[in-house]
Amino acid sequence: MQTIEKTEPKLVELKTRLAEINDLEAAASLLYWDQATYMPPGGAEARGRQLATLQQISHSKFTESAIGQLLEDLRPYEASLSYDSDEASLIRITRRKYERAVRVPANFMAEFSKHRTEAYGAWARARPANNFAAVQPYLEKTLDLSRELANFFPEYDHIADPLIDFADYGMKASFLRSLFANLRQQLVPIVEAITSQTPIDDSCLHQVYPEAQQLKFTLKAIEQLGYDFQRGRQDQTHHPFMINFSTGDVRITTRVYENDLDQALFSSIHEMGHALYEQGINPELEGTPLAGGTSAGIHESQSRLWENLVGRSLGFWKFFYPQLQAFFPTQLGNIGLETFYRAINKVKRSLIRTDADEVTYNLHVMIRFDLELQMLEGRLEIRDLPEAWNERYRSDLGIVPENDSDGVLQDVHWYTGQIGGMFQCYTLGNLMSAQIFEAALAAHPEILVNIEQGQFSTLHNWLKENIYQHGCKYTAAELIGSVTGTQLHIAPFIRYIRQKYGQLYSL
Amino acid sequence: MQTIEKTEPKLVELKTRLAEINDLEAAASLLYWDQATYMPPGGAEARGRQLATLQQISHSKFTESAIGQLLEDLRPYEASLSYDSDEASLIRITRRKYERAVRVPANFMAEFSKHRTEAYGAWARARPANNFAAVQPYLEKTLDLSRELANFFPEYDHIADPLIDFADYGMKASFLRSLFANLRQQLVPIVEAITSQTPIDDSCLHQVYPEAQQLKFTLKAIEQLGYDFQRGRQDQTHHPFMINFSTGDVRITTRVYENDLDQALFSSIHEMGHALYEQGINPELEGTPLAGGTSAGIHESQSRLWENLVGRSLGFWKFFYPQLQAFFPTQLGNIGLETFYRAINKVKRSLIRTDADEVTYNLHVMIRFDLELQMLEGRLEIRDLPEAWNERYRSDLGIVPENDSDGVLQDVHWYTGQIGGMFQCYTLGNLMSAQIFEAALAAHPEILVNIEQGQFSTLHNWLKENIYQHGCKYTAAELIGSVTGTQLHIAPFIRYIRQKYGQLYSL
Repeated sequence: MQTIEKTEPKLVELKTRLAEINDLEAAASLLYWDQATYMPPGGAEARGRQLATLQQISHSKFTESAIGQLLEDLRPYEASLSYDSDEASLIRITRRKYERAVRVPANFMAEFSKHRTEAYGAWARARPANNFAAVQPYLEKTLDLSRELANFFPEYDHIADPLIDFADYGMKASFLRSLFANLRQQLVPIVEAITSQTPIDDSCLHQVYPEAQQLKFTLKAIEQLGYDFQRGRQDQTHHPFMINFSTGDVRITTRVYENDLDQALFSSIHEMGHALYEQGINPELEGTPLAGGTSAGIHESQSRLWENLVGRSLGFWKFFYPQLQAFFPTQLGNIGLETFYRAINKVKRSLIRTDADEVTYNLHVMIRFDLELQMLEGRLEIRDLPEAWNERYRSDLGIVPENDSDGVLQDVHWYTGQIGGMFQCYTLGNLMSAQIFEAALAAHPEILVNIEQGQFSTLHNWLKENIYQHGCKYTAAELIGSVTGTQLHIAPFIRYIRQKYGQLYSL
Repeated sequence: MQTIEKTEPKLVELKTRLAEINDLEAAASLLYWDQATYMPPGGAEARGRQLATLQQISHSKFTESAIGQLLEDLRPYEASLSYDSDEASLIRITRRKYERAVRVPANFMAEFSKHRTEAYGAWARARPANNFAAVQPYLEKTLDLSRELANFFPEYDHIADPLIDFADYGMKASFLRSLFANLRQQLVPIVEAITSQTPIDDSCLHQVYPEAQQLKFTLKAIEQLGYDFQRGRQDQTHHPFMINFSTGDVRITTRVYENDLDQALFSSIHEMGHALYEQGINPELEGTPLAGGTSAGIHESQSRLWENLVGRSLGFWKFFYPQLQAFFPTQLGNIGLETFYRAINKVKRSLIRTDADEVTYNLHVMIRFDLELQMLEGRLEIRDLPEAWNERYRSDLGIVPENDSDGVLQDVHWYTGQIGGMFQCYTLGNLMSAQIFEAALAAHPEILVNIEQGQFSTLHNWLKENIYQHGCKYTAAELIGSVTGTQLHIAPFIRYIRQKYGQLYSL
């Protein structure tokens, strides 16, 4: 982009302005990371203010009319470039974000940001206390604000559409409803066939596994998978996440439970999947809006691909299990690979989304998605939410939470974000992970054998080449189209589930 | 300040603007903290940019003419208030900072900030490699920029004066030269008398002390001294420092050497002294320019008071030594209190400022202060700096560094700040720590007995009441005046040194 910068001063000016905004956003991200990892309790109040200030400044700088003018002035230049070029993509994606951003007043953004910080605080106290009543007023305000936010975009068909669009550009409630109904129809009989059988014994995962040793193993494993510790680090948080401050600093967090080996292991691999995406972005895009994953769904496809399609496969553990046994000889020395593999793939009707297996996981997601739509449509009041939640768990999963902590209070999303657009990405990610992995195997059938040998670079390089490097130059639909030659659809995921769990459960 | 805010809208507006700037500065501080503690190497390049951006935005927001106008408009209101009131102080101190800030162009600030990041990086590589030549061009540019910075303030008598004034308001090169000459004259014979005696045996400090155990002890000790871990934390860095993001989040760092117990112990207490100051600021001042220590010298007086006048006293260890022995029974079980006390107060002619004892420490500082002045005056070229450094060590301390790593490359200051105004605070801090401690003892003679009993709250509360709570409402000179009833002078420090080391060395 050097030559261009010299010849097109308006693009240089746009990039200079965007780099400043990018720096403010990176600083806000670091404030958030610190809040979740190392900040002492006394820092919380000021931190909320600081986050709101940074977001307000970056929003107001991004929505300055000068940016709009530059984007207008650059139209002829953009038209002279190829769609795939970095420059055209930068102008195109910036314009899309700009046109969205200018619709939301800065003072509304600030109010919402401040409210989210407060709601998060209330939730963090309410969840352990199993006290939904304590967060109800916060959630009511969140719903009001979410509606207000959506109403800045009245041209969409459904009130949830703009909120979904923010996370998964191009997706709509109507499309997702039908996609999810189709998926549910296929999944329910599989879940029923599995759960009518004798449950898998996963007690081997629930011995005492010292936390420090677990952490050490996760670090070793993700390094072998391709995570670059020169450009990242792993810390512990209550809720694992990936966050980045530049392509050179992409961090993950994990959580460790002494009596549940599954948690640290798969949290780490999951977040590493997100991180490989961000670490794999072309460094030339650094400091621009192109330097990030293209949608929440595509991002989740990468975390789930590494966590599940790779990390919960038998081939993966053919390589890693001896290492794991060496880390935990007394716990796993006498446990065979097959027993371990079955344990990490146990399917059961459970209450907690983040603990759910691959087969039931999407049922959890779809409950939340439907509830979000109902709340936004005004068909479900916040005060009735716990009951509606429990009712859906009864009907869809056949179990009911004994308390709200394991029910409606379990996910942080509504308490730290908006209501609407928060959950569809998980199921989209699962579906796309299967599509993308099929495409990778079609291009490189040796990947499965490579995995058994602890060689992950063929897969990693293919993902870099086809997905990671592009940042958000292409939409999710464009990426899926170019990578798989088709559109988003559920068949590959269902095929994957039927094949893997057909063997595990002799369906 | 609530009532006032309702009645004086211009003050409300000023405070709103200042709070935003304060948030940006806090974010920049967190970027710096993270860079020093946990940032992976790959994050360095973007971090430099991010820091520069935040500093540029906060500087440009602070120097907006609207702030100047508000300060002008508030003059009559300010005149109606008492000098001591929060409101008058806020206007007064903001005006002082504003009048200074508007003299420095924003693009100069950004250039200097960017250069400092690069210079720091060069130094971090050059010091372990003992390669002064590698940093010489950076330091030359630093000197040019330092001169340029000073020249924005041509009304001062000496080119170093504005740079000194930034850190220690009201201080001047001419005054410091004469103060320091006086101090040197008194110290040199004491150092000579001590170093002509048989050296103290401090080998008990240089056994193997496992790092984790050292860290544990420092945490326990500073908690007992009064550091509030709900509003702070301690991490490890190569160079210990204190940093705060609000009065509710005041962090310190320390460094641990397995073979030198002295380092972690006194680094932690030193930085805790800085932190007690910031933690003790009246929370009503939060988010304003008043919520910070008033000068580098006063700040250093607090770290040195706790580190030396308290932390290296015999009474302190009468209380803490049994605890330390319990932490390190094999290392210290057979070492008596008196031996330990003498070891931590060993005086010797040494090369490294931060390792220097209380008696020789100021000689190290004054070498740097004089060299700063010579460089700024154009009487010393950067290329001749290593030789000038070594020559001064020979003449003042009677020893010469064998390499630049232990010489001119040892302190980070010139490589991360400007040349000028960086070092006088250390000696000012030592002098004022003695003055302030004398005043505290005059008010509460029981403090010495309290310390022996592990009760530090009388001293801590007196410091809060007389110094900490005020933030930077009062200048250093005003504070010293009100606390001690006199001006800055060297007699209390010399008295303290003579008394303590007179006993230790039977002078």
